[in-house]
Amino acid sequence: MTTQPIYDTVCFIGIGHIGASLAKAIRANGLARRLIAVDQSAAALETALKLGVVDEVFNDPAQAVLSADLVVVATPVGAIESVGQAIGPHLKPGATVTDVGSVKMAVIRDLGPAIPEGVHFIPGHPIAGTENSGPESGLADLFKGRWHILTPIPGTDAKALEDLSEMWRRVGAQVEVMEAHHHDRVLAITSHLPHLIAYTIVGTATDLETTLAQEVIKFSASGFRDFTRIAASDPVMWRDIFLNNRDAVLDVIQRFTEDLTALQRAIRWGEGDVLEQKFTTTRKIRRAIVDAKQA
Amino acid sequence: MTTQPIYDTVCFIGIGHIGASLAKAIRANGLARRLIAVDQSAAALETALKLGVVDEVFNDPAQAVLSADLVVVATPVGAIESVGQAIGPHLKPGATVTDVGSVKMAVIRDLGPAIPEGVHFIPGHPIAGTENSGPESGLADLFKGRWHILTPIPGTDAKALEDLSEMWRRVGAQVEVMEAHHHDRVLAITSHLPHLIAYTIVGTATDLETTLAQEVIKFSASGFRDFTRIAASDPVMWRDIFLNNRDAVLDVIQRFTEDLTALQRAIRWGEGDVLEQKFTTTRKIRRAIVDAKQA
Repeated sequence: MTTQPIYDTVCFIGIGHIGASLAKAIRANGLARRLIAVDQSAAALETALKLGVVDEVFNDPAQAVLSADLVVVATPVGAIESVGQAIGPHLKPGATVTDVGSVKMAVIRDLGPAIPEGVHFIPGHPIAGTENSGPESGLADLFKGRWHILTPIPGTDAKALEDLSEMWRRVGAQVEVMEAHHHDRVLAITSHLPHLIAYTIVGTATDLETTLAQEVIKFSASGFRDFTRIAASDPVMWRDIFLNNRDAVLDVIQRFTEDLTALQRAIRWGEGDVLEQKFTTTRKIRRAIVDAKQA
Repeated sequence: MTTQPIYDTVCFIGIGHIGASLAKAIRANGLARRLIAVDQSAAALETALKLGVVDEVFNDPAQAVLSADLVVVATPVGAIESVGQAIGPHLKPGATVTDVGSVKMAVIRDLGPAIPEGVHFIPGHPIAGTENSGPESGLADLFKGRWHILTPIPGTDAKALEDLSEMWRRVGAQVEVMEAHHHDRVLAITSHLPHLIAYTIVGTATDLETTLAQEVIKFSASGFRDFTRIAASDPVMWRDIFLNNRDAVLDVIQRFTEDLTALQRAIRWGEGDVLEQKFTTTRKIRRAIVDAKQA
């Protein structure tokens, strides 16, 4: 494996948990010569600079992208359209623009039109992250052994795609290329529905009388706590995901609700065989995940 | 801390994950002189004997309990009524009978009437366990730092209660005494609903077309996998829990469904402020669980 940098200057638009993790990983693996960042939050920029996550910070996105060979948009999805308007006219010819958003159709819709001819736009989504936020939570090995999904649009430059793929591989990820619409459907079930359910169940518990809510925390090891980790994820990021993958999410909520209603009915009518049969099937999925080394 | 045994002979009715873990913990801490077991499964008994989890095994529960000072019923809750009928007439005067079932009202209803005068019946529930089954999955330190809930019935002998509490404390648990009805309500929200939801969502994913289901496994790190651990729990045990805590479980399903419907509606109508506000609240619960050292 070569240690040549892949890009000269990489610019992060948004230096939160994912942006800072990627910056650290690029630095640790010598994949760029210079790392710069812009962020709405002055505190985030100050932290990123103080911790040495990036070399230089900017307040103006237009200034920041001027010299960037790779621009990584790592803001909540809802901010991507205005990012596009701010950076579009200032992007360097031949540069690549990518993102790390959890939905891909909406990113293509909102960011795509702002990218000028001669700049390569390659949307992406790393299947990695913790429930933490901010540049101080960045982890250089966050992407090791995880998937990175790229959803290039038709006609994407092969060299630009290969460079970006190679960068993700060198920070430890396995790269998978798929169509944006398919990505949004897969993630609706593997990620968006689980988060919505986790937010709901934790919310249901929060609304209980005070004494009962305290006991929920006390006895959370009995199952509840498995849901609380993902229900602690960034609120703005998740608001934007649900608003921007609405149709796929509403479809899986509908399926889930039908399935829950069937189990609810089996409990009400004492149909033990229905419950046992269902619970036996789901056990196999866990085994498959353990076997796929994703556990 | 004294190393005196608390009981001479402890008999396990059912030597699966929890029974074997407690047997190992009792042995490791010198809390009994002799450990014996009876189980419906000849293979489980053979494994428990071979691994040295217990000293002696029996096929007949009536024979097994004759000399036991403490009887630990560690079967699925649905089997407890027949266990009571089998052991009731043969229990040693002055002995204590306890259990480890995840519901307590049903255990009192099903096992209580079989316990003769002069034998102490003290229902219990350890808030501990993994998704594994069988005596080979027993862990001596499973109860360390975890809660053990005892739900004694009115008039319980103080000395018997103190001995049993002391045994649980010496295997590392913190003992909490509460009323059985309250236990069932608390656990419906902290444990039974989370398990039902996890079983449902994993089932919903299982029902997808084959290619999509494989991608769910592949990209499970994006949220889904947090649910699969608890959806891999023992099917018979969980069937019995839902059938035996029906009213409390149906009540919390109803609350959960209402809350999910509200979020579903907010997604459909693009009400970002509703989503963000809800997701901000749930983050606090995670912090409380981390602070309570239950994470």
